Amino acid sequence: MIYKALKIPLKSGRFVVILNESDASDLGVREGDRLKIKCGRNQVIATVQITKDMIKSGFVGLSDIVAAELNIKDGEVEVTPFSKPKSVEYIKKKMLGECLTAEEIRAIVFDIVRNSLSEVEIASFVISSMLKGMSFDEIEWLTRAMIESGERIYFETSNVVDKHSIGGVPGNKISLIIVPTVAAAGLLIPKTASRAITSASGTADTMEVLADVNLSVDEIKEIVEKVGGVIAWGGATNIAPADDKIIRVENPLSIDPRPQLLASVMAKKVAVGARFVALDIPIGEGTKVTSSDAARKLANDFIELGKRFGVEIAAAITYGGQPIGRSVGPALEAKEALKTMEDRRGSSSLIEKALGIAGLIFEISGLATDGYAYARKIFESGKTLEKFKEIIAAQGGDEKIKSEDIPVGDKKFVLTSNTEGAVVAVNNKAIVKIARAAGAPKDKGAGVYIHKKRGEVVKVGEPILTIYAEKDWKLDKAIEVARRENPIIVSGMVLEVIRGGVKV
Amino acid sequence: MIYKALKIPLKSGRFVVILNESDASDLGVREGDRLKIKCGRNQVIATVQITKDMIKSGFVGLSDIVAAELNIKDGEVEVTPFSKPKSVEYIKKKMLGECLTAEEIRAIVFDIVRNSLSEVEIASFVISSMLKGMSFDEIEWLTRAMIESGERIYFETSNVVDKHSIGGVPGNKISLIIVPTVAAAGLLIPKTASRAITSASGTADTMEVLADVNLSVDEIKEIVEKVGGVIAWGGATNIAPADDKIIRVENPLSIDPRPQLLASVMAKKVAVGARFVALDIPIGEGTKVTSSDAARKLANDFIELGKRFGVEIAAAITYGGQPIGRSVGPALEAKEALKTMEDRRGSSSLIEKALGIAGLIFEISGLATDGYAYARKIFESGKTLEKFKEIIAAQGGDEKIKSEDIPVGDKKFVLTSNTEGAVVAVNNKAIVKIARAAGAPKDKGAGVYIHKKRGEVVKVGEPILTIYAEKDWKLDKAIEVARRENPIIVSGMVLEVIRGGVKV
Repeated sequence: MIYKALKIPLKSGRFVVILNESDASDLGVREGDRLKIKCGRNQVIATVQITKDMIKSGFVGLSDIVAAELNIKDGEVEVTPFSKPKSVEYIKKKMLGECLTAEEIRAIVFDIVRNSLSEVEIASFVISSMLKGMSFDEIEWLTRAMIESGERIYFETSNVVDKHSIGGVPGNKISLIIVPTVAAAGLLIPKTASRAITSASGTADTMEVLADVNLSVDEIKEIVEKVGGVIAWGGATNIAPADDKIIRVENPLSIDPRPQLLASVMAKKVAVGARFVALDIPIGEGTKVTSSDAARKLANDFIELGKRFGVEIAAAITYGGQPIGRSVGPALEAKEALKTMEDRRGSSSLIEKALGIAGLIFEISGLATDGYAYARKIFESGKTLEKFKEIIAAQGGDEKIKSEDIPVGDKKFVLTSNTEGAVVAVNNKAIVKIARAAGAPKDKGAGVYIHKKRGEVVKVGEPILTIYAEKDWKLDKAIEVARRENPIIVSGMVLEVIRGGVKV
Repeated sequence: MIYKALKIPLKSGRFVVILNESDASDLGVREGDRLKIKCGRNQVIATVQITKDMIKSGFVGLSDIVAAELNIKDGEVEVTPFSKPKSVEYIKKKMLGECLTAEEIRAIVFDIVRNSLSEVEIASFVISSMLKGMSFDEIEWLTRAMIESGERIYFETSNVVDKHSIGGVPGNKISLIIVPTVAAAGLLIPKTASRAITSASGTADTMEVLADVNLSVDEIKEIVEKVGGVIAWGGATNIAPADDKIIRVENPLSIDPRPQLLASVMAKKVAVGARFVALDIPIGEGTKVTSSDAARKLANDFIELGKRFGVEIAAAITYGGQPIGRSVGPALEAKEALKTMEDRRGSSSLIEKALGIAGLIFEISGLATDGYAYARKIFESGKTLEKFKEIIAAQGGDEKIKSEDIPVGDKKFVLTSNTEGAVVAVNNKAIVKIARAAGAPKDKGAGVYIHKKRGEVVKVGEPILTIYAEKDWKLDKAIEVARRENPIIVSGMVLEVIRGGVKV
């Protein structure tokens, strides 16, 4: 049936169509049903909302992204009811623990991409994959479907490299140092990064403080060909677009199941044309991968999956028992990374790790035999900073920016120590909870700065942690979390006193 | 912060609040975040949608149910950001396979009831309970939380009874006969019924064709005290209100996990004050419970759970290998049930089963030793029909209605047999798929009528199935499903010919 389209300024991430109740009844649809909306050659599957008098009969209201996708102003659209897609049955099959075929997985992924599945249906797929698992073949098919349902970048050279960190360790801003270091050596590194899923800041959130990360595939290609590297938000491209929609349901649940993890990482690397990929798998209490056995298994899974796509992978198992560097949260992390490059010194956990992973890339791509030394030389020469500023400029940022110019949240709270002693633990999960309660990653200036890390000595009344927020109520919430969660544990230097063989 | 409220005529089942983007930024919330909205003593947790110019700064748009829940016209409301509830952590705990405590389950159920959990979060809870299971204690706690988070009915007598059919067999319209039969015998039966989850018509959908099923707890009590019985939609009451919200996420996935099944049935029975409950567990190919072992296990689970609440339960394992009676779909089923009572005869599968379950109620409540004979006598005397009309009238329906007056879908398609033989199978799942594709249960007049059931003889060209629909496109879809699914299998009477010891 033909309706007049009205743009409704709803900035919804969902594809929504608003119908008058009499039209809904004519079409035989109810709230939550799906409609196919066609305008010329463009079409969208949208979810029905029903109104009594907001939209008159004969009209349909289209939310921002529906109107954008159809590329219409106010005109006519053809509307037809759209039945539940077949892929819902395949999701139920996975829920019952059965293996899916390549075609079934492809159908699910393509339906996710074209918005034919609801969030509840996508969540069911993700949770079932997590609880029932997927075979290696299924993961390969999931990867292929993710690649094929999106855009790809083809470079003319074969020295395209990439890196990926499995999340779980807070403050892991290493990409901001690795990308310019690698690019400074003449390799191409089209790094597409995620926004935070369970962390306080994803690399894309952090880079966004300094430059535009919402880049198209064409812009990424152009920038990489020009300056050698880029740090872009993958979700803004059409590379493996299913991933971002899957993240939308994983995010509120703070989950990241293995099949989706393997497939989404690999799909993005293959889609940008990477031939050599270094993986960073942090382990330790509170990280995503908690044992070295699990890390080795994950590394081998990635290496095996890489072989199926002609990608050589090397994985580094890294120490993730406490945050990398001292800052957690988008603006605080961007500030710390930039300052480290400016000073050519800083937190050793940050520098050692970034140059270690950069070195791994140099080794597998055949550029150096001692990759770490090679990376260190570039970093200390100042070429890393120089290249980073080129990248910032190429991404539309201010290449003259200094670390001291980066603003952070103006609501602050300093946590001080009430004992004298040494820090025996920095609790990753607690740090992330505090930073998220303070507003990170949504509020760029929110986060925490850790004054004292493991092994450092602290006196009574000395600051151990500063919380930054943009909103008072979020600061209050973060303080409450900090008080409950014991983010930093200080023990008296004297741990035990023994007199005459009796503990006191 | 204080905003002016504007009612937005969005008939959404979700609690939605629409904010101007500048106000959203002030509050530090994004799309999908939660806000607490207070108006006097009423408050609601609603999900944020953001607009550029639909709502001006300083105003908030409230969807129909938010405005109704707050009981406001256009006035002022207090709006505060609402962080993710603790119960999300408990859902993750269940996702990881851990047991939940009574308090954790209580928190989840109460958050479901007060709309603090999103559909994705509720779906995660349901799917995790399904895939990871729940202990018996957890199920008891789930039941208690479901009861306590809603309204209850207290009757002054103790002869309150109830019945429940586990779904899975199409056309199971027996409650329409059981309730008046039992009420005619002087027992009180406050039957609250569901709408369809995976079936083509729930008892509430079917009864709604004849009378109002959207009754409050006070109305149910009043009607039952007046005429002895009622058939109301549970979701319209505030009895175990969590269930209806859980069904909202189960419905699109067509799932019905055991913990939620046990808890929701028991919660409703306890909440209406039932002391004696008869359960109908259909088994057979295509039903929800497929083996008699599984049925016995489920029956024992119910009996055991009943003991924890002082409810005596008897379960009947019934034949569910093909539909009950000949009709499937709301209007068609209401028509068949009414006609059966008018004629005091009809499909034996319908009459035998309804009177069998009614008889079980008479036996456990001590009213009769041969319950079936007792029920049959009432039915044949015409008292069942008489009482049913009293119930229809008490529920605001037309007590003079005759079965022939009930309208069904005017789009029809008759499937005929292309062979001569006998029906060897009626495929329940295929029948349901066809009826649902035709529009049932949403479109009341949609469904199927089965002309030939198992063992019945059919000639070439004779009708075996009629599909009814209200919309052409749904009829087309249903025909397509019918052609693919083989709902009714006819075999030639001569199954095999043997000549001289050789099969031909």
